[in-house]
Amino acid sequence: MDAQLKAFFDQVNKDQEIYIERLREVVAIPSVSSDVALRPQVFRMGEWLQKELKRLNIEYELRDPGTHVMDGVTLQLPPVILGAYGRDPAKKTILVYGHYDVQPALKEDGWATEPFELVENAKGELLGRGSTDDKGPILGWLNGIEAHQKLGLEFPVNLCICFEGMEENGSEGLDDIIVAEAKGWFKDVDAVCISDNYWLGETKPCLTYGLRGISYYKVAVKGPGRDLHSGVFGGTVHEPMTDLTHILSKLVSPHGQILIPGIMDDVAPLTDAEKASYPSLDFCLDTLHCAIDAKNTLHDNHIDALMGRWRYPSLSLHGIEGAFSAPGAKTVIPAKVIGKFSIRSVPNMVPEKIDACVNKYINDEFAKLCSKNQMEIECLHAGKPWVASFEHPNYVAAASAVERVFGVKPDMTREGGSIPVTLTFQDALNKNVLLLPMGRSSDGAHSINEKLDRSNYIEGTKLLGAYLWELSTHTF
Amino acid sequence: MDAQLKAFFDQVNKDQEIYIERLREVVAIPSVSSDVALRPQVFRMGEWLQKELKRLNIEYELRDPGTHVMDGVTLQLPPVILGAYGRDPAKKTILVYGHYDVQPALKEDGWATEPFELVENAKGELLGRGSTDDKGPILGWLNGIEAHQKLGLEFPVNLCICFEGMEENGSEGLDDIIVAEAKGWFKDVDAVCISDNYWLGETKPCLTYGLRGISYYKVAVKGPGRDLHSGVFGGTVHEPMTDLTHILSKLVSPHGQILIPGIMDDVAPLTDAEKASYPSLDFCLDTLHCAIDAKNTLHDNHIDALMGRWRYPSLSLHGIEGAFSAPGAKTVIPAKVIGKFSIRSVPNMVPEKIDACVNKYINDEFAKLCSKNQMEIECLHAGKPWVASFEHPNYVAAASAVERVFGVKPDMTREGGSIPVTLTFQDALNKNVLLLPMGRSSDGAHSINEKLDRSNYIEGTKLLGAYLWELSTHTF
Ligand SMILES: [Zn+2]
Ligand SMILES: [Zn+2]
Ligand SMILES: [Zn+2]
Ligand SMILES: [Zn+2]
Repeated sequence: MDAQLKAFFDQVNKDQEIYIERLREVVAIPSVSSDVALRPQVFRMGEWLQKELKRLNIEYELRDPGTHVMDGVTLQLPPVILGAYGRDPAKKTILVYGHYDVQPALKEDGWATEPFELVENAKGELLGRGSTDDKGPILGWLNGIEAHQKLGLEFPVNLCICFEGMEENGSEGLDDIIVAEAKGWFKDVDAVCISDNYWLGETKPCLTYGLRGISYYKVAVKGPGRDLHSGVFGGTVHEPMTDLTHILSKLVSPHGQILIPGIMDDVAPLTDAEKASYPSLDFCLDTLHCAIDAKNTLHDNHIDALMGRWRYPSLSLHGIEGAFSAPGAKTVIPAKVIGKFSIRSVPNMVPEKIDACVNKYINDEFAKLCSKNQMEIECLHAGKPWVASFEHPNYVAAASAVERVFGVKPDMTREGGSIPVTLTFQDALNKNVLLLPMGRSSDGAHSINEKLDRSNYIEGTKLLGAYLWELSTHTF
Repeated sequence: MDAQLKAFFDQVNKDQEIYIERLREVVAIPSVSSDVALRPQVFRMGEWLQKELKRLNIEYELRDPGTHVMDGVTLQLPPVILGAYGRDPAKKTILVYGHYDVQPALKEDGWATEPFELVENAKGELLGRGSTDDKGPILGWLNGIEAHQKLGLEFPVNLCICFEGMEENGSEGLDDIIVAEAKGWFKDVDAVCISDNYWLGETKPCLTYGLRGISYYKVAVKGPGRDLHSGVFGGTVHEPMTDLTHILSKLVSPHGQILIPGIMDDVAPLTDAEKASYPSLDFCLDTLHCAIDAKNTLHDNHIDALMGRWRYPSLSLHGIEGAFSAPGAKTVIPAKVIGKFSIRSVPNMVPEKIDACVNKYINDEFAKLCSKNQMEIECLHAGKPWVASFEHPNYVAAASAVERVFGVKPDMTREGGSIPVTLTFQDALNKNVLLLPMGRSSDGAHSINEKLDRSNYIEGTKLLGAYLWELSTHTF
């Protein structure tokens, strides 16, 4: 394997300008899925991929997620592209996921360059919308296949592909297709790899094995039949804002402790293996201070900060709908106010149990207020947390690949947010899922000046290939 | 006096259709002071009044409040019209105030009729914008002078007039003019009467002797340098919304008790005279329930409810600027949030003392949170409460006039809001000020379908005249 990998790495080095031209070609297609006017560009990007799959002799089929309504217009959803490169029963079958749509971008938002023209700057950063999220990683898989073909090397695994064009706009229709294909296109899959997140820092690759879930709530308090003037009615009515503020203040302490009884009960204890993974992580408080542009962090060390981000639940108060929210001074008693908050959940918390705790507690606290107002709680959406075992061969293979390409052991990370498709794959296929990022923390995936470093793109292409080689040596 | 008053009342009865035609004429002038496009109509209304003053041989001068900027346009402010009807040193000089501008009104807001066309309905209600606020009362004074002239009756007092055209838009420039004229146009004034508020209920006239003040605050809590995603940063930073919610929840209890130490200390004790004035008031809990379109009142009887409205302070939380306030579910940690609240103050509270209590308490409470965020308190505006003695001859005369016209003793009321010009007159002239309303509680001054009942207009015209007659019999 060593000789084959060496040949592969050399080929990638040799072809890097080709890869960059290819990235230039796809960045030039403004496949913004959330813009009605640009929806045809998402289809164009899908066609570009189909042409590429054909060129590389990758078998593929399209799945049609149907239509949806956006800004009052009924629109066709771009196809989910299912690919299969090899169907050798003697090899592992690895499912890779990527998305070919991108976030919106306008030069006037503050981009230094034209967002849909790939520009390499003096630091070797490849600037352009979609460079890192998620066109670079998609090309990484395809570049690897091309390099193997040029070398006449047998591909180490069967590659099963799932590319969608709606990730930045809610992945409409994708879940149904994944569930439907679990016993279809995906039936032979042994493990899943998603390359659509980022290193923890700037220098060290990581494998991501966990994501938090979310339970998003609204608490509505309703009092008078209409907004009242505080001069005329202040001091005569139960004011909904007063009740709501009392309730919201009871949910979380100023130090981030969730005050809802029962919520912390199901938090999985810290294992020795997990604990041991923290000290070496490419992260420090300065990184965090820089990211938040302030120093108001809850913890005085980076380990507690990272645990706060991804392995413990948190509760954030987002705002209040229905109250006076404009600048200036309005003397209104709002008639109905709706507090919004969400709980980021972690294993082994379950949405149903969170719901029960939240409802009981808020109802109890509201009862204590002895208010004549009406209160109602609603869960707007809930997603489960996800965690994978990083002792699984899927992770072990990826870790070895990182060592081969970068000469270091990867960081084992989780993320504080959610990537819903991760859980869908795990639940539908019941296989280990790995998040294997290509880009860095500073890539600015959803911001202006999105970039992918040349080195991340080229070494990342090697990494994805090496990971598949490493996988072929494991049995699971 | 009785014969003269009888003749005056008869004349008013006889001329009522003339008065209604006059009201129709002025309602047809859409003198909306807060609408750039309608500003010329405010001037037109001012010219209508000047023509009327000339016709009635009332001496007058204009004062120019200058210009102001509204919606980015520099606009001329409509003139303050100063009138003098009689300058006999043997008579009392009574200053009457009114405003000739109106609130905005559009048919499509839900008006049953064209807002700027006076319509009398089957119930004898004169519907139209400005009918009750404040064109009806202004005409009341002028109708009275006309009636006296027709009868060849000597006018009982010297009438000093102050009509402004910016009341519904902050009375810009008025205070300076009042202060400047204290020793000028207003130098001989013995008492002041403002007819620009409403009866407490539907059936019984009232004299209004008190208004609450207001101290309006914003509390800003600033944390991260920019809004953060709650997935990535929830659990790692001190969230400004958490701190702010804790502070706001400490200001007022769900039962309306202000929790800021020291705030209640200066509340004037209830006197026996005031206490005795409540039981007979034309008000019940149903009136309040109807006004708020709900039953979430703090008190179980109308006396406590009225005291809550106007003789005790109250604290209302108006809303939060900078937090997520739209419908839907956004997972943001807002970087800077600004809570808005105000305290309605009563005698003998003073803004400086309120400020000191608020600042000390909030600073102490914020310190207890041990937050790394920054907090700042600012008083956006402050107005003092006002209360007059209803044993003053100005009130005694008005009460006698009510008995003459309506055959009942008036309610002695206060209001929960503020009418800033009241305090300006009192402080600048150091004379007793009386609020003598013409319209009813249900007139809908700032709402759709504003109206003035024909009986309130006609009996109100008698009342204003009778009040001046009664005043002439008192020495003070
Ligand atoms: Zn992505
Ligand atoms: Zn993205
Ligand atoms: Zn008014
Ligand atoms: Zn008004």
